[in-house]
Amino acid sequence: MKLDKLVGDRFKERPSDCIIDSHALMVRGGYMKGVANGVYSSYMPLKRVTRKIEQIMREEMDAIDGQEVSFPVVMPASLWEESGRYGSIGKELVRFSDRNNSPLVLGMTHEEAAVQLVRDYGQSYMKYPFMIYQIQTKFRDEARPRAGLIRVREFTMKDAYSFHTSQEDLEQYYDRAHKSYERIFERCGLPEVISVASDSGMMGGKVSHEFMLLSPIGEDSIAICNECDYRANMEAAESIISCARDEVSNELTMVHTPGMQTIEDVCNYLKADQKDSVKAVIYQRNSDDKYIVLFIRGDLEANETKMRNHLGFEIHPAVVTEDCGLCAGYCGPVGLPSDVIVLYDNSIKNRNNLCCGANKVEYHYVGLDMARDVANAEYHDFAKIAEGGVCPKCGKPAISISRGVEVGNIFQLGTKYTTSMGMTFVDEKGNSQTPIMGCYGIGVGRLAAAICEAHHDDHGPIWPMSVAPWQVHLCAVRADNAEIKEYADNLYNALTAKGIEVIYDDRSVSAGVMFSDADLLGVPLRVVVSPRNVKQSIVEVVSRDKSFSQNVPMENALDEIVKIVDDFKSKF
Amino acid sequence: MKLDKLVGDRFKERPSDCIIDSHALMVRGGYMKGVANGVYSSYMPLKRVTRKIEQIMREEMDAIDGQEVSFPVVMPASLWEESGRYGSIGKELVRFSDRNNSPLVLGMTHEEAAVQLVRDYGQSYMKYPFMIYQIQTKFRDEARPRAGLIRVREFTMKDAYSFHTSQEDLEQYYDRAHKSYERIFERCGLPEVISVASDSGMMGGKVSHEFMLLSPIGEDSIAICNECDYRANMEAAESIISCARDEVSNELTMVHTPGMQTIEDVCNYLKADQKDSVKAVIYQRNSDDKYIVLFIRGDLEANETKMRNHLGFEIHPAVVTEDCGLCAGYCGPVGLPSDVIVLYDNSIKNRNNLCCGANKVEYHYVGLDMARDVANAEYHDFAKIAEGGVCPKCGKPAISISRGVEVGNIFQLGTKYTTSMGMTFVDEKGNSQTPIMGCYGIGVGRLAAAICEAHHDDHGPIWPMSVAPWQVHLCAVRADNAEIKEYADNLYNALTAKGIEVIYDDRSVSAGVMFSDADLLGVPLRVVVSPRNVKQSIVEVVSRDKSFSQNVPMENALDEIVKIVDDFKSKF
Repeated sequence: MKLDKLVGDRFKERPSDCIIDSHALMVRGGYMKGVANGVYSSYMPLKRVTRKIEQIMREEMDAIDGQEVSFPVVMPASLWEESGRYGSIGKELVRFSDRNNSPLVLGMTHEEAAVQLVRDYGQSYMKYPFMIYQIQTKFRDEARPRAGLIRVREFTMKDAYSFHTSQEDLEQYYDRAHKSYERIFERCGLPEVISVASDSGMMGGKVSHEFMLLSPIGEDSIAICNECDYRANMEAAESIISCARDEVSNELTMVHTPGMQTIEDVCNYLKADQKDSVKAVIYQRNSDDKYIVLFIRGDLEANETKMRNHLGFEIHPAVVTEDCGLCAGYCGPVGLPSDVIVLYDNSIKNRNNLCCGANKVEYHYVGLDMARDVANAEYHDFAKIAEGGVCPKCGKPAISISRGVEVGNIFQLGTKYTTSMGMTFVDEKGNSQTPIMGCYGIGVGRLAAAICEAHHDDHGPIWPMSVAPWQVHLCAVRADNAEIKEYADNLYNALTAKGIEVIYDDRSVSAGVMFSDADLLGVPLRVVVSPRNVKQSIVEVVSRDKSFSQNVPMENALDEIVKIVDDFKSKF
Repeated sequence: MKLDKLVGDRFKERPSDCIIDSHALMVRGGYMKGVANGVYSSYMPLKRVTRKIEQIMREEMDAIDGQEVSFPVVMPASLWEESGRYGSIGKELVRFSDRNNSPLVLGMTHEEAAVQLVRDYGQSYMKYPFMIYQIQTKFRDEARPRAGLIRVREFTMKDAYSFHTSQEDLEQYYDRAHKSYERIFERCGLPEVISVASDSGMMGGKVSHEFMLLSPIGEDSIAICNECDYRANMEAAESIISCARDEVSNELTMVHTPGMQTIEDVCNYLKADQKDSVKAVIYQRNSDDKYIVLFIRGDLEANETKMRNHLGFEIHPAVVTEDCGLCAGYCGPVGLPSDVIVLYDNSIKNRNNLCCGANKVEYHYVGLDMARDVANAEYHDFAKIAEGGVCPKCGKPAISISRGVEVGNIFQLGTKYTTSMGMTFVDEKGNSQTPIMGCYGIGVGRLAAAICEAHHDDHGPIWPMSVAPWQVHLCAVRADNAEIKEYADNLYNALTAKGIEVIYDDRSVSAGVMFSDADLLGVPLRVVVSPRNVKQSIVEVVSRDKSFSQNVPMENALDEIVKIVDDFKSKF
């Protein structure tokens, strides 16, 4: 490919609407162009990167006995009604009607389509296990698309679905898929991706893992134990809090706390430690706005995901009105109106000598004893694990919190979809059973962005050889010089004939422009033919990351470069 | 791939809802499954066929300097408003709104997206020409999806868009694209595909070609000259009619024609030749139902496409009401109400001594002289070319009409999209100009179905080696025999290790079941290991189309089979 014909503009200035580096560099480098909010077109360099990523995924899915299929982008609403998700998923699911007023949806994930495709086929235990996958466009009407390809509305995803006759078989396959994912990220140049236990959310099922690239730009918070191998998404990480009681319980006493509405203010005013306070966090049920009050230790934060999973319905932070019966800023567990749902976090279980709201404007209690004063409370884990928290695995207070970009996820789905959609098989004994599913997803564009995020400098991406748009960036500096031009043309043709992917810059531009364009394209090896080099009868070979530099003699540059490319290829 | 794990059912009975063979065989062979009307999922065998087709397209597009990009499936309505198509295209274009009530569309073609992607880039003549293409999902809300993958609502398409600074440059590139398409169809095993001149329809532009597989199941009618190389879609084919006048014109005379409402009846009753009659064909404008009356020679048929192109708006066959002013069955050019749009076909130009309706119930005229009685008529070509008609190229009456499936099309778009969407470039002289576009499309699934339609027998598809889901179908008949099983297993592994794509059937089923499954999978070469063959120390190699059969010695079966596969590969 000749660079002078490469469609797409490259430029120097960081676009003001790009918050993260990978987005800025991909816009600056002519990789992508916005079409609508969270919807992009790709130019050739990005298309080449994503096709290579897709091919790696395909090979690894085939290696774990996956069968490539394809499901439609547009599906009938009836399929999603069968699974129950037509009603349970919110506005992210795009719903529309066709010319005959048949309701349709745009696929944001394909569990329903997968079950529909195989439920006739999978009627005997002898057909199991099997796994089908596709690489296909999906659309999810995100409220807040952001960060370029990290969170978009339209995206290409590799999604895989496995079907099993037993939980043991699923677990075995799940482990294979986990290893397959590790290989995919390693082959894409991201061996640093870690897997973390995660919450299964709307997907159903219990066990699931997210694959995370640790990065400050990540939307997810991950709890990592510094003492053992425990790693979990903060949404899923169990919070362990020691609940020591004082030996003697004081009396429950109401105190005047004028204007003290936050837990910080109250504790300062009462000279109490926040660890000895109870705060109320108020939510409402999405369906009918009924109030939900969570009582939790004053210094901890509520984990909405745990609340949602416990309650079994969707919630949102509350709007506390004057006439709702709740006393904003002064809510406490004693004397609360009876028409609200109350949750108690483990962190206040059996504690005494606490301060809390008195359900009366400008008043708090001190001397609260949960066991004595709120006798019938049930305690569960509703808190976010915190920096320095106790590791649920090794028990040491060694948790640190990092940000991460989720680049893949795997779920043990169980029978949520097969049950709701009536898929069964006959087992060895002639009994009807419900197959157990797993599902496994990676977003292609997000992975490309994550690779760029992990591997770039100020001047552009530094693509690993395995996913780079081209393998060699050949620069003919001063191509107006006939000798330079002829030599570079021949080298270009010879490298291409050897099957090496070359982007060839023979424009009449300065070396500066040439090199900054090369930086933006991020090709791992740069080969420079220039008057200075020709004078020394050498060709310069430099790696994009500057870790490698070699002058090779002009007369056997071809063989040397082929060797260097092979060497770089073997590194991933 | 082991056949016993291939997801998808194969069965014998032709499904009653499959009208054409390719659809029936693809359902029977476990290639596809319906998800909604005109929307299908693909199982692995079809996915493998379409991926090979896509790879052939990709190579041929790259060979004519195409750059692979991708456009979104979901686009903002505003893009289609820019081009004017948001209003002009009917219900085939799916329109919906996102969570913020922004109007969106599902891409049914991507001219708008192509211009949006490159209009910033293509501002200087030096960037031209260039071509971008994608292989992507599209959705078109067809009123009548039919015939399996031949006419669907959701489909994968290879669509390409070229941009030029002059008509000459476009024409040159258009010829390259034409040749590229010929290579694609040839490599896919359809060298019999012909290109025909076509009507550009809603795409805009003048010159266009369709690539047609002649087949009785085709939806299109194609005019082919038996004397020269003229070939055109009937929609586009010029109709040439000789218009000889009688020397003497009779007087215009009204005659009573009780109950004679069709041209056949009238001519029989008046003992006139239909060639000496004028019939009225009545349409209405879509936007306001205004009437349009076409007068054409009684034995010819109206070509709606030509009428639409001449009028510049959409029309539909009329509903003639009692009070509309038109006299159904008795319409004629003399005394017609003045508030209708009247069109005259070339076939009645200057003719005399014709019969026609008298615009009065149960009355016709005889002795109509168009020159005398309808003095200011303008004549154009609005007739369908007919079997035996005059060839517009060589002038001989040698036209025959065939049915064809359109498997690709190419258009010289001109500046329709670049003008409406405000794309310009600065030419050598510093003047602002509008780029000229071409576009080039092939539907992947329809091409797969067309290949199957052209290459099958009653038992299944006969895939060409270049697009076959696998290259070799290895049957181990009586795999319960240890010797058979061991030999076949080894051969399977050895062939696979040589890079040959093998589907391996080692199930404990009868040879009959095995072979009928193999017929349905349509793999070009079948290799049979069986007790009878082993007794003779041979392995049987048979081609799916029965044109080739060879017994190769067991001891060097591997090398022989590799040779045969290579030989078959070289045929396409």
